[in-house]
Amino acid sequence: MSSNPEIDIPDFTDIHQARARISEWTRKTPVLNDPALDEKLGCKLYCKCENLQRTCAFKFRGACNAIFRLRENAIEGDVATHSSGNHGAALALAASLDGRKAQVVMPEDSAQMKIDSVRRYGGIVHFCAPTQESREEALAKLVEAGKIPVPPYDNADIIAGQGTSALELMQEVPTLEQIITPVGGGGLISGTAIAVRGSNVQVYGVEPEGAADTVASLEQGERVTTWAPDTIADGLRALVGVRNFTVIKNEVRQVLTVSDEDIRQAMHLFWLELRLLIEPSSATVIAAVRNHPEIFSDKKIGVIISGGNISPGDWLTMTRQV
Amino acid sequence: MSSNPEIDIPDFTDIHQARARISEWTRKTPVLNDPALDEKLGCKLYCKCENLQRTCAFKFRGACNAIFRLRENAIEGDVATHSSGNHGAALALAASLDGRKAQVVMPEDSAQMKIDSVRRYGGIVHFCAPTQESREEALAKLVEAGKIPVPPYDNADIIAGQGTSALELMQEVPTLEQIITPVGGGGLISGTAIAVRGSNVQVYGVEPEGAADTVASLEQGERVTTWAPDTIADGLRALVGVRNFTVIKNEVRQVLTVSDEDIRQAMHLFWLELRLLIEPSSATVIAAVRNHPEIFSDKKIGVIISGGNISPGDWLTMTRQV
Repeated sequence: MSSNPEIDIPDFTDIHQARARISEWTRKTPVLNDPALDEKLGCKLYCKCENLQRTCAFKFRGACNAIFRLRENAIEGDVATHSSGNHGAALALAASLDGRKAQVVMPEDSAQMKIDSVRRYGGIVHFCAPTQESREEALAKLVEAGKIPVPPYDNADIIAGQGTSALELMQEVPTLEQIITPVGGGGLISGTAIAVRGSNVQVYGVEPEGAADTVASLEQGERVTTWAPDTIADGLRALVGVRNFTVIKNEVRQVLTVSDEDIRQAMHLFWLELRLLIEPSSATVIAAVRNHPEIFSDKKIGVIISGGNISPGDWLTMTRQV
Repeated sequence: MSSNPEIDIPDFTDIHQARARISEWTRKTPVLNDPALDEKLGCKLYCKCENLQRTCAFKFRGACNAIFRLRENAIEGDVATHSSGNHGAALALAASLDGRKAQVVMPEDSAQMKIDSVRRYGGIVHFCAPTQESREEALAKLVEAGKIPVPPYDNADIIAGQGTSALELMQEVPTLEQIITPVGGGGLISGTAIAVRGSNVQVYGVEPEGAADTVASLEQGERVTTWAPDTIADGLRALVGVRNFTVIKNEVRQVLTVSDEDIRQAMHLFWLELRLLIEPSSATVIAAVRNHPEIFSDKKIGVIISGGNISPGDWLTMTRQV
């Protein structure tokens, strides 16, 4: 990653360019509105279903943008990253589309299904301890060995790619008042905040209480750099990135927190109304709408359903505990 | 049902009118193509996801069309039907949109989730033995008591409504060569066959081996009227209807059969590639593509994924037996 991150935060144009670059490879994911869900939540909710994206998560957008930028710049060779799973699988598939291999550092407590996915798309998995330091150390070794690093979120190309989901959402529902996304490393929310520039849309983020480093960072005015995450939302355990935090600080209206119990209930509610199994990270946005009628009541809200990589068995275990 | 069914089979125009009538209430369901699934199946597959329709099945299209036709004709009062579940839930919701109640006769071996769905949308459930005779007997009693019958498939308005899914699919993918749908009572396939009139699209149907009354009917040249269904595909246990059989006989290229084992494997494959839980009835079309490369290889095929009403627990039970 750059030692001077201020210089390479993408702008609105980068997101439009990313959209043009990746649209041949990515799926224009459906936006679902469900009147029964609206009634329960007291608002109009437009769900941008990135769980129906290729690799079943929004991460494929950023990974594609990063890989095809490498091609444009004639940079050849295999790529490497660290990921709790969805970015790894996304990078593995995106790399394979360009004839490359992806080496993926994964915490040893990653969901088995996500490990399987990385491998299924041709990625090579390297396990590490479930801490930020271990992830970065293992990645550094791969980079020393000549692999091209494609960070999961703290990177301009990744942020621009992730912003394309909000771009599509706003084109499909131009009258939105708010957009809510989960916050892990911050790739999705920072891309979203940049994508809505010039509109009246307010962007909100959501973190699990057990991985609320962004909220803590906003409170103390600078990035928290250590946090031992404790949440069922395996996709949101990473620390917010430098570029990502800069964008969040300046352009995101508020980052809310939800409990794991809120997440379990929201996963179940989403299945009940839409018959879609979504991973706990995705359910945070639904939980936030339920918890904060003072912000979301009667509004026209876009929520980005970030991913659907959960096994039915794990889904049952998580939601039965409700 | 009419004693002279030949007179009220819908035509192409009826399907277009149905589309205009119901489009405010139904969801234009997404069409998903997945390159990895294509590679495994050796064709280009466009999945029309009626599992993402309201009430999570295509049945809502026909039910809406029937209810709003009643309104147009100023016919007031509550409605009644028999259904293994999806038509019942669809009719319950459609009726509620027009301020009516739906009385739903359900076989006592219906999936619990489908019973719950009918009730959740405001329908009133009446159980019967799991035979065609018991269903029709129970419905006849409700009709005697003054309820308006809305049959699940052997009805012109229902057929016209179900045909709107293929209409949308062809508009989205105009170069399709084939469309495949499951066959239970035949509402979906007959509507589909009428919707593709004037195009070069060939329509195929699929039945589970344990509920292959349509195939038997085609072989003997007339409708089989008794059959003890034995299949995990709970949505396909009904006998083909009179109007439906007439259309199938004249306009469907072939009805194929698949085993329950084929269905289990196809459910798992669909989840593996698209992370969508689909009910066994829906998976028949994927199973048929796998089983018949001599028909489907290298073709551009639309498949109607008919519904997603299966609990994750039941899905696990069904697919773990593979």
